[in-house]
Amino acid sequence: MAYQKLTKRSEDYSKWYNELVVRADLAESSAVRGCMVIKPYGYAIWEKMQAELDRRFKETGVKNAYFPLFIPKSYLCREAEHVEGFAKECAVVTHYRLKNDPDGKGVIVDPDAKLEEELIVRPTSETIIWSTYKNWISSYRDLPILCNQWANVVRWEMRTRLFLRTAEFLWQEGHTAHATYEEAIAKAEEMLHVYADFAENVMAVPVIKGVKSANERFAGAIETFCIEAMMQDGKALQAGTSHFLGQNFAKAFDVQYLTKENKQEYVWATSWGVSTRLMGALIMAHSDDNGLVLPPALAPYQVVIVPIFKNDEQKAALDAKILPLVDKLKKMGVSVLLDDADNQTPGWKFAEYELKGVPVRLALGMRDLENGTIEVVRRDTLEKQSLAFEGIEQHIKQLLDDIQKNIFQKALDYRQTKTRICDSYEEFKEEIKKGGFLLCHWDGTPETEEKIKEETKATIRCIPLEGDKTPGKCMVTGKPSKQRVVFAISY
Amino acid sequence: MAYQKLTKRSEDYSKWYNELVVRADLAESSAVRGCMVIKPYGYAIWEKMQAELDRRFKETGVKNAYFPLFIPKSYLCREAEHVEGFAKECAVVTHYRLKNDPDGKGVIVDPDAKLEEELIVRPTSETIIWSTYKNWISSYRDLPILCNQWANVVRWEMRTRLFLRTAEFLWQEGHTAHATYEEAIAKAEEMLHVYADFAENVMAVPVIKGVKSANERFAGAIETFCIEAMMQDGKALQAGTSHFLGQNFAKAFDVQYLTKENKQEYVWATSWGVSTRLMGALIMAHSDDNGLVLPPALAPYQVVIVPIFKNDEQKAALDAKILPLVDKLKKMGVSVLLDDADNQTPGWKFAEYELKGVPVRLALGMRDLENGTIEVVRRDTLEKQSLAFEGIEQHIKQLLDDIQKNIFQKALDYRQTKTRICDSYEEFKEEIKKGGFLLCHWDGTPETEEKIKEETKATIRCIPLEGDKTPGKCMVTGKPSKQRVVFAISY
Repeated sequence: MAYQKLTKRSEDYSKWYNELVVRADLAESSAVRGCMVIKPYGYAIWEKMQAELDRRFKETGVKNAYFPLFIPKSYLCREAEHVEGFAKECAVVTHYRLKNDPDGKGVIVDPDAKLEEELIVRPTSETIIWSTYKNWISSYRDLPILCNQWANVVRWEMRTRLFLRTAEFLWQEGHTAHATYEEAIAKAEEMLHVYADFAENVMAVPVIKGVKSANERFAGAIETFCIEAMMQDGKALQAGTSHFLGQNFAKAFDVQYLTKENKQEYVWATSWGVSTRLMGALIMAHSDDNGLVLPPALAPYQVVIVPIFKNDEQKAALDAKILPLVDKLKKMGVSVLLDDADNQTPGWKFAEYELKGVPVRLALGMRDLENGTIEVVRRDTLEKQSLAFEGIEQHIKQLLDDIQKNIFQKALDYRQTKTRICDSYEEFKEEIKKGGFLLCHWDGTPETEEKIKEETKATIRCIPLEGDKTPGKCMVTGKPSKQRVVFAISY
Repeated sequence: MAYQKLTKRSEDYSKWYNELVVRADLAESSAVRGCMVIKPYGYAIWEKMQAELDRRFKETGVKNAYFPLFIPKSYLCREAEHVEGFAKECAVVTHYRLKNDPDGKGVIVDPDAKLEEELIVRPTSETIIWSTYKNWISSYRDLPILCNQWANVVRWEMRTRLFLRTAEFLWQEGHTAHATYEEAIAKAEEMLHVYADFAENVMAVPVIKGVKSANERFAGAIETFCIEAMMQDGKALQAGTSHFLGQNFAKAFDVQYLTKENKQEYVWATSWGVSTRLMGALIMAHSDDNGLVLPPALAPYQVVIVPIFKNDEQKAALDAKILPLVDKLKKMGVSVLLDDADNQTPGWKFAEYELKGVPVRLALGMRDLENGTIEVVRRDTLEKQSLAFEGIEQHIKQLLDDIQKNIFQKALDYRQTKTRICDSYEEFKEEIKKGGFLLCHWDGTPETEEKIKEETKATIRCIPLEGDKTPGKCMVTGKPSKQRVVFAISY
């Protein structure tokens, strides 16, 4: 069976993405509008992301907990901006029972089982968590509280895309409570750095750390920190956010604490989250026309071995070399898949594991046995080498490290070539069509930002925390600007 | 501050349980009726359960995936017994948007945003999963499919209790698809053995493996395998179930496959799950009037160290001995908490860690430094010893193993003393009031089972797979019985 090629990125990037997600067995649409099924191969990558993030969170003193799926409608409404931000995309539970249709046509919602107060399926959990924290906090001794939960959330998006925007998605949401402004904002920044470290060193995706403009801030936040990544089509993708919530939720739920000086004060808050959207970022940052390119740190299998044989005798001869190699690799902490099935050709398998993004492919045939060699192909460059079998495990270990670094460097180089300075709004309108990040001066007003968005679809992705901080003049209004900000078209 | 005692088990077992769950920081009720908050200490135990179960599942070839939270109402109705079993306790989503109340009184459900078809928050996922499997299966080559998901589910229970019965709970649900009857039923049994192994060797809770009578079967199953545990009040608790679903869901969703012989056949199914209910089983099986008793395999901290000092100088002298011990224990894979806070007395801390069920408590004071000793208290027996400090880490390692075994043995001994043979229904009516398991002959009919339940509240917990299989006569009707079955009052 010939292997069916993917649509090329240059032909139709969006189609390429959708095909790749489905063909590589990552996810698919479900029977429920906007909700996805995450398939085992995709979920295995998500589990690796979870493990890496979870370990990092715990190293900062955060503990996991679990809060209810449902939020009473009145709770969502306690913080004015918060409800404004989420009311339009809520799944609402109104009844708690079905019954047989009296007309005999199956099952209907039982009108007698109407809830007194409707429940919202959580779009995020600030409100239910702060109503809980109220009971946990009375004195400075109870602070800080550092909780995280791994959970599903629902936002009723009208236009959905696998991983990037779905009605239900999986995420983690951290919620911390602090005695002081300084401690809270430091925690929000600390978690931003955790996300950036994860994105760059695990996902191999370079990110810009910054803060959001007021227009792009989380509903209810005083400051939203974010990491922004560039995809291979030049669009920006927000890969994680960490919010400094001030005392907004503490005031909404009347959460006060007794200070050391015996005064009642409102508690300071942060929240921070990343979601299965990161799967979309991972796919779009690295993959190519042959399929996924996975960083070894997240690949369900880092190495696949394909023996090439014509009969059981040949297979046995190959096994005698391969099985000890598999053992050695596993002992070195390398995950290995041995595919010795005889119902597909080696060529088909090679294409399949390229599609699935396995970082290193090994092939071993009878000629290799004679010559004491093995064929090694790295997924990121597709470079093929015939190497000595003896000691190959050390080479593979090194190769996996090289691939991890190379994927990151490639993405970084791409971002650098697609990042330009722009000082004229006329030039901006043309340049933004070519994609990438444009570093521009902006007067800091929502009005100017809105005008640019309307006229060009570009938004301020972030006000960078690091790099050049030279002031200048807004490219649109000529008014003073504190520093250049990052404009882009975003996912 | 004096440490507040728990209600004694002998005074009020149910009150003891409720107090313990809250006081030990395991969970609490939330603002949403029937939904609980799992607090960090409780969640840490659940995470350990998850890790142990997940590893065992993966060893049998199962992979994790994720399916939608919502189930279209029509899907739930496809399998007649299934909808009958779950319709009365469903959370129903009817709308997807809120809007500002035109009367200016906050936010209301937007009547224009009514769903065409209502969505049910999953009470279990057979229907949405089998509608998905339909697209994954066409030939025998696609089988078996072995998926599991870790998820939240909702069953609108009217009377709820923390961990034991809550409207929302966390669980795992495995769903497998097979080519043959034999393979499917073997998988259902295999997973039962996985659960039993986990219950006995990790939770230290002895269980009886069996099958459910028709009355107690899962809605839509042909056979329900289960493990049943005995709590310290003599009641039974169902700790896990594994269902052989036959072709019921394959037929409901028209899932057929092409056999090797080129015939279309319906696919065979299993499903199996355990939930946060296991937390209730763990608590009730082992804990005592001083608080939790945790098996070392699930304790968030296996060892707590309490230094006893009066000033910084003493503290420094103790640290010089304690810090290297902490390192040694961690290197041996033992999790350790060092509590050197000076805002609570050692006595308060001792009571606190007894309440929290930390398996081993170490205390070190100035006299110990002089004598080269350390105080060691094991939580299961509360036995206190002063031992040589030198080499104490080896003793602790051994002690943790002993505690794990002892807790299991104690629960097993208790179950054995509370398990009796009973051949007369008159005697049964008296004996069942004393709690425990009664092994009785039963004629196999739902009518007799129903009569016994009505008259005594006892149900058939299971028909055991192992042990005595001698036939006899039903204690109620005198009709033939194939083997003794387990009766008990259950949670």
